Amino acid sequence: MPKIKTAILQTHVYKDKIRNITQTAEHLAAPELASIDLAVLPEMFCCPYENKCFPEYAEAEGGDTWEKCSRLAAEHKIYLVAGSMPERDEEGHIYNTSYVFDRTGKQIGKHRKMHLFDINVKGGQYFKESDTLTPGNQVTVFDTEFGKMGLCICYDLRFPELARLMVDKGAQVIIVPAAFNMTTGPLHWELMFRQRAVDNQVYTIGAAPARDMNAGYHSWGHSIVTDPWGKVLMEMDEKPDIKVVKLDLDEVSRVREELPLLKHRRKDLYTLSQI
Amino acid sequence: MPKIKTAILQTHVYKDKIRNITQTAEHLAAPELASIDLAVLPEMFCCPYENKCFPEYAEAEGGDTWEKCSRLAAEHKIYLVAGSMPERDEEGHIYNTSYVFDRTGKQIGKHRKMHLFDINVKGGQYFKESDTLTPGNQVTVFDTEFGKMGLCICYDLRFPELARLMVDKGAQVIIVPAAFNMTTGPLHWELMFRQRAVDNQVYTIGAAPARDMNAGYHSWGHSIVTDPWGKVLMEMDEKPDIKVVKLDLDEVSRVREELPLLKHRRKDLYTLSQI
Repeated sequence: MPKIKTAILQTHVYKDKIRNITQTAEHLAAPELASIDLAVLPEMFCCPYENKCFPEYAEAEGGDTWEKCSRLAAEHKIYLVAGSMPERDEEGHIYNTSYVFDRTGKQIGKHRKMHLFDINVKGGQYFKESDTLTPGNQVTVFDTEFGKMGLCICYDLRFPELARLMVDKGAQVIIVPAAFNMTTGPLHWELMFRQRAVDNQVYTIGAAPARDMNAGYHSWGHSIVTDPWGKVLMEMDEKPDIKVVKLDLDEVSRVREELPLLKHRRKDLYTLSQI
Repeated sequence: MPKIKTAILQTHVYKDKIRNITQTAEHLAAPELASIDLAVLPEMFCCPYENKCFPEYAEAEGGDTWEKCSRLAAEHKIYLVAGSMPERDEEGHIYNTSYVFDRTGKQIGKHRKMHLFDINVKGGQYFKESDTLTPGNQVTVFDTEFGKMGLCICYDLRFPELARLMVDKGAQVIIVPAAFNMTTGPLHWELMFRQRAVDNQVYTIGAAPARDMNAGYHSWGHSIVTDPWGKVLMEMDEKPDIKVVKLDLDEVSRVREELPLLKHRRKDLYTLSQI
């Protein structure tokens, strides 16, 4: 199985929506990314992570930002997980949505964040996504020439049930546009990506916005890739950065054979299922 | 809520079964442990961790080792999680079983390891528990004056489903007699105890046998306690050791309020249930 050359883009988020897309286009055109198969952008890569911005920046599926992302995928002949952006549906609901495009620019996946982030840590982080956002209701796995990949957004990965459901649908990689903060980042970010990888014997990829201390929400950054043993293959610091990591899905099969965790589940005693 | 003074015993495992119990009795009689509420012993604390030893050392529930453990709990007026030992039932099946006694010596919990450890890592660890052991079929939570505690054994903790089921039954602490090895220990031990704590917002306790390079199976040791934020409160090295850690169940309530992970599960979309 050929290795999957994957670029993770930890970009600065500008208030100017177009500038965010332009910089993404420039990065993808760089010679270092000439032969990649897959690119992953951060959560809310084109919209400041603030409740008041979500409705203002929101577009319908197929809108201008969607269109530009689709064209970028086709132009570079890559799979593009377009981080996430606020999506407005016909009834006016706003979602935190990740679109996935194939090498022809066709949309092959779409995930609406299903667990909304409402937190109030004493002396730490406060945020209430549910003030403006509506949660999605779908577990998302998409198919590539390499195999199946699961997709969720940030807080979604907090829930081991969702990772398991993606794996039960065939995911060998779990991709997570995400933006942890200065409270939960140092405590849980790396730990969570590693343990979800170990439990499910998948690669995990987290793509975060770079930290901007002038923004309303301070992203932890630290975009990360871990292998199915939970080893960290790449982790950034908080600054804008781009890294290319090769994923080897044969390694997923090897690990699942050597330590057959998924097979050893006691499905005769407990069951996890979608309703 | 009073804090729970908890002693974790990382003991050497002797071939002489009685000697293992005698040393436990001596440790529990030490002045440093005079005011503890709870003591946790390692997995197979009285039996070398080898398939050929399990049938040889096995006793029925209520047998001599069980009896001695019950008396130790009553004598010191403590809750005792008696690590684990091989149990033989009436039909001759052997289980890896953990008994729990209250301050009067009464058995208030019993867990038979439900996921058997069969592993074959190339150039790493090989072990096949299912050659001699029969798996248990029960999720185990026991009640104390402090609150409910979940109990499972080593490989059981690999399965996020089981931790969740214990928490759904009210567990605020998850206790795990366990013996990771020199392959899985450095890779996954600390990570797993931390992430199960974070996901479920519980204290986790792992009690392992001390490492013995003359034994057939080399225990990683590293007995551990983590708090509900996943912070490591105590971790040993590989040598015999005893540590006392105070657990504060008010912290469980605080964490569950500040970051309401358990409440944020999308129970309308997925369900984990016992069969």
